[in-house]
Amino acid sequence: MNEINNPDVLAEVNAAFDAYERALVTNDVALLDALFFDSPQTLRYGATENLYGYDAIRAFRAARPGMGLARTMTARVVTTYGDSFAVANIEFRREGNPRIGRQSQTWMKTTDGWRVVCAHVSWMEAPSP
Amino acid sequence: MNEINNPDVLAEVNAAFDAYERALVTNDVALLDALFFDSPQTLRYGATENLYGYDAIRAFRAARPGMGLARTMTARVVTTYGDSFAVANIEFRREGNPRIGRQSQTWMKTTDGWRVVCAHVSWMEAPSP
Repeated sequence: MNEINNPDVLAEVNAAFDAYERALVTNDVALLDALFFDSPQTLRYGATENLYGYDAIRAFRAARPGMGLARTMTARVVTTYGDSFAVANIEFRREGNPRIGRQSQTWMKTTDGWRVVCAHVSWMEAPSP
Repeated sequence: MNEINNPDVLAEVNAAFDAYERALVTNDVALLDALFFDSPQTLRYGATENLYGYDAIRAFRAARPGMGLARTMTARVVTTYGDSFAVANIEFRREGNPRIGRQSQTWMKTTDGWRVVCAHVSWMEAPSP
């Protein structure tokens, strides 16, 4: 069974996650690219797009305007399983948007460090009537 | 480095994922519950709710009406990393809804079999003007 939240592993993933968040809000595209796993299997479901493969994700970031990416994290749960897998989930708010954003990432430790293998970002909706 | 998509591991995860999908569309709540990892760290971001911990997810399923869960999968990517981690991502359509649904799950192999440790479901939105 994989140990959950080993303190050393958790510290590594938290550091990687913090670096990602800083890169996101400053639109540091090179670092965002570096933190995703370079593989055709890597995928990212964004609020308005479904991107399959590292190259598609990189092309999306290269084309995206760098404005309006600032956000405030309102919940954060990073959990490590064993020494080479983790999930990072946050809720966030963006100015001018009344809804709650959610971001989920699955991280894997590679020979080059921790990398995101899969991500999903969305805005929460009101329940159906 | 974790082997990607070892055929035996991939077959196991595909079987677990198929069982989950059948349980979802038939609202087999007992099986849905069984396939999520029983842990306070387990979480699920749904289209309209953010659920933290196995108990919150179970309570949500127990209260949810069983109607209208049928869906058609329009894309599916299951990827295994090593022998005990996997991510499963699908796009789906639901009748009467013009939007594309996305479901992301992270699976871990436990002593009881493969279990979902984290899930995110959302409807894709139109790009900002």
